[in-house]
Amino acid sequence: MNNFDLKSYLAERRELVEKALAEFLPPADDYGRNLLEAMRYSLFAGGKRLRPILCLAGCEAVGGSLEQAMPAAVALEMIHTYSLIHDDLPGMDDDDLRRGRPTNHKVFGVGMAVLAGDGLLNEGLGLLAMAAVSGRIDPVRAMAALDVIARAAGHRGMVGGQAMDIESEGRAVDGGVLEYIHTHKTGALLIASVKSGAILGGGDPERVAALEAYGRGIGLAFQIVDDILDIEGDTASLGKTVGADQARGKATYPAVYGLDAAKAEARRLIGEALAALNGFGGEAAPLRAIADYLLTRKK
Amino acid sequence: MNNFDLKSYLAERRELVEKALAEFLPPADDYGRNLLEAMRYSLFAGGKRLRPILCLAGCEAVGGSLEQAMPAAVALEMIHTYSLIHDDLPGMDDDDLRRGRPTNHKVFGVGMAVLAGDGLLNEGLGLLAMAAVSGRIDPVRAMAALDVIARAAGHRGMVGGQAMDIESEGRAVDGGVLEYIHTHKTGALLIASVKSGAILGGGDPERVAALEAYGRGIGLAFQIVDDILDIEGDTASLGKTVGADQARGKATYPAVYGLDAAKAEARRLIGEALAALNGFGGEAAPLRAIADYLLTRKK
Repeated sequence: MNNFDLKSYLAERRELVEKALAEFLPPADDYGRNLLEAMRYSLFAGGKRLRPILCLAGCEAVGGSLEQAMPAAVALEMIHTYSLIHDDLPGMDDDDLRRGRPTNHKVFGVGMAVLAGDGLLNEGLGLLAMAAVSGRIDPVRAMAALDVIARAAGHRGMVGGQAMDIESEGRAVDGGVLEYIHTHKTGALLIASVKSGAILGGGDPERVAALEAYGRGIGLAFQIVDDILDIEGDTASLGKTVGADQARGKATYPAVYGLDAAKAEARRLIGEALAALNGFGGEAAPLRAIADYLLTRKK
Repeated sequence: MNNFDLKSYLAERRELVEKALAEFLPPADDYGRNLLEAMRYSLFAGGKRLRPILCLAGCEAVGGSLEQAMPAAVALEMIHTYSLIHDDLPGMDDDDLRRGRPTNHKVFGVGMAVLAGDGLLNEGLGLLAMAAVSGRIDPVRAMAALDVIARAAGHRGMVGGQAMDIESEGRAVDGGVLEYIHTHKTGALLIASVKSGAILGGGDPERVAALEAYGRGIGLAFQIVDDILDIEGDTASLGKTVGADQARGKATYPAVYGLDAAKAEARRLIGEALAALNGFGGEAAPLRAIADYLLTRKK
């Protein structure tokens, strides 16, 4: 533990991110009005903004500025939000509730929800190019960061993990399949968040690799804690139905290894993440505090 | 008319594009197998490859090489294919047949079809970054081209047009809404195809603007001819059901202005596209021949 005031830090960072999101995706007053409303409904649904905050923290940990990482931070939240909208669709997880509110397709219809997700993914992946063309960020770093983010988001990453997740539903899965789902569905984009920030901040290859290792540890731990909360958490603070994974026969770490082993594994992974930061000083204090928080969070 | 042998040209270019698509999206033999199969099912369904061919032709019209434009060409076909998969979904157009074969969700299920589309969009938008990072194309041009493509594909372009299209179904639409749908849903990505090719080939701003004007003409004409073929074409050569737009109460140019006015407008737009090429010599012969072909095509 350290003396870092994480609560104030997260609140301040969230506010910066909210402002940037609003700047990068303003409402429309023309023909695109309804589509933008659907995109903004899910983007401004009160998320933790964990991926943007990790991206900004990764950038600052290598001595970069917030401005250098902000377009990627915004892009990551758009990409994360698109994945939630599509995951909730009928034919996917078919969920009615997300963050305590009706899911996107429940409000706007299935067709518009598909398009709202598509619009957010497009905008997210295009955003680094837009920022580079306008001179806001360096084009070579922007390309390297985008390469990392797009690989993590696509079939080699998040989309691949989600595909395996729906394929495995209701089936007995082994540790290999479970690890594939975890590392791809959630882990990949969390790793990309820290790593892309480090790249945009101009980190040297060793520092980028160390932050990638940090991302790997917290990424896997995050998903295991999520699965634990689905069993031990309460619906009110989570904003989604507890026990939904179990009811659906989802492949989860506690289901395969048991609750105690899941908790031990989460602790071990957070330890690995912290160890990866050994070469960093106070500039990585936020990343250390975030790792601790991810292990002990209740929602 | 000119002496350019369009048929051989298109066949040769299609073969180059097929090879590049296969190189950029090989099948998987691991956990991602089924997702890749779904992505490849629609990507290799025998499309005309119009967008890649326009991109390559735009690049060559400004003196660029095929290698410079190929990653964008592949990206454009992936993005086009993703849009077809999602357009065909229940809640969207809910189509069973595409290019004479069952639509993606009919074969792989709705969830996997959503993800196959997501995977193709991710891969397409990430591809220019991947090519730039590996040194295959110039990073500054890659960013400029990606900016053009992402804007054309997202809520400012194709996704916006599709949203308005489903919002307008079964309602009386005026000329303003119709033009919005046409320019956004189909026109934007066709313009981006020629323009991104010109940017990647190193075209100066005037040539890029001329090719953008060409793209605008053929882009709108293409959609009008599509709508005409939905009335006058035959199901066998189109590979989709004739009269589907009418049955669904879709906003089409012939429905709003009548068939004769639609044909006249398509001719006028192709004339404008050809006029935009006046400053070009033989290097734009393929683009001229393609414009003529788009007006007279039967499928």
